[in-house]
Amino acid sequence: VDQSAELVAANARYYQAFEAADLDAMSEVWERTARVTCTHPGWATLRGWAQVSASYFALFSGPVRTQFVLTGQQVVLNGATGWLSLDENLLGEQAGVAVAALNVFVRDGGRWSLVCHHGSVVHAAGD
Amino acid sequence: VDQSAELVAANARYYQAFEAADLDAMSEVWERTARVTCTHPGWATLRGWAQVSASYFALFSGPVRTQFVLTGQQVVLNGATGWLSLDENLLGEQAGVAVAALNVFVRDGGRWSLVCHHGSVVHAAGD
Repeated sequence: VDQSAELVAANARYYQAFEAADLDAMSEVWERTARVTCTHPGWATLRGWAQVSASYFALFSGPVRTQFVLTGQQVVLNGATGWLSLDENLLGEQAGVAVAALNVFVRDGGRWSLVCHHGSVVHAAGD
Repeated sequence: VDQSAELVAANARYYQAFEAADLDAMSEVWERTARVTCTHPGWATLRGWAQVSASYFALFSGPVRTQFVLTGQQVVLNGATGWLSLDENLLGEQAGVAVAALNVFVRDGGRWSLVCHHGSVVHAAGD
C-alpha cells in the first residue's frame, strides 16, 4: 500500500464532502474523537467531534456552496501520522479568496482519519 | 521520559524564542528541513526552512515585539509525532488580538522539532 497515495485520497475525500455539503461523507473523513480540532478561517478553534461536526452541519445547512481549486499541495508522512499543506482557492461567491490550510491525519487500522484542519485566509500584501 | 512534557517544553521554547526575538533560539526549535511549513496570520504558507527562517528574521528585525499569553492548550501524541492546539493572546501593541495556533512537532533522536506552525487571527462574531 502506498501510504502517501492513501493519505492524498483521504484528503481529497475531505474536499469532496465539503463541496457536496455531505455531512455523512464528512463524518467518514474525520476521526470522531475528543482530540480532533478544526479552525475554520477567522473562527476560534473547535475541539472535539461534537463541536466540529456541528460546524459542518451549520455550514452545510447554509445557502453558500463552496468549491475549491487546490494548489501547492505538499504531503508529509511521519510514521502513522501524515499531513498536507495546501492552498484552497475558492470559486463561486467567494471567488478570489485563497485559504492556506493544514490538514493532519492519523492512520489506524489501515485507514487515514483527519484529526486537525486549520484554514486561514491569505491576505494579499497591502491588505 | 515523559514525551508529553518534553513536547510541551519544546512548544514553550518556540514562544520564548519569539518573545525574545532570538533567531538562534528559534532555529533550535525548528527542524530546519525542506518539509517544514509556517503560516503566519494572514500570510501565505512559507515552505522550507530557508523561507521560514527568513520570515522570523524579518519579524525579529522589525520594531514590534510580541508577547503572548497562551490559553486553551491541548496536547496530542501519536507515535513520533505530536501537536498542540492553543490560543495565542497577544499583549502590548497588539493587545486584544487572539491567534488560533496549531503546532506540529516530530521526535527524532530524543528531541522534538517543530515542523508546522499555523496561526490565524480569531475574529469575534460580527467582525
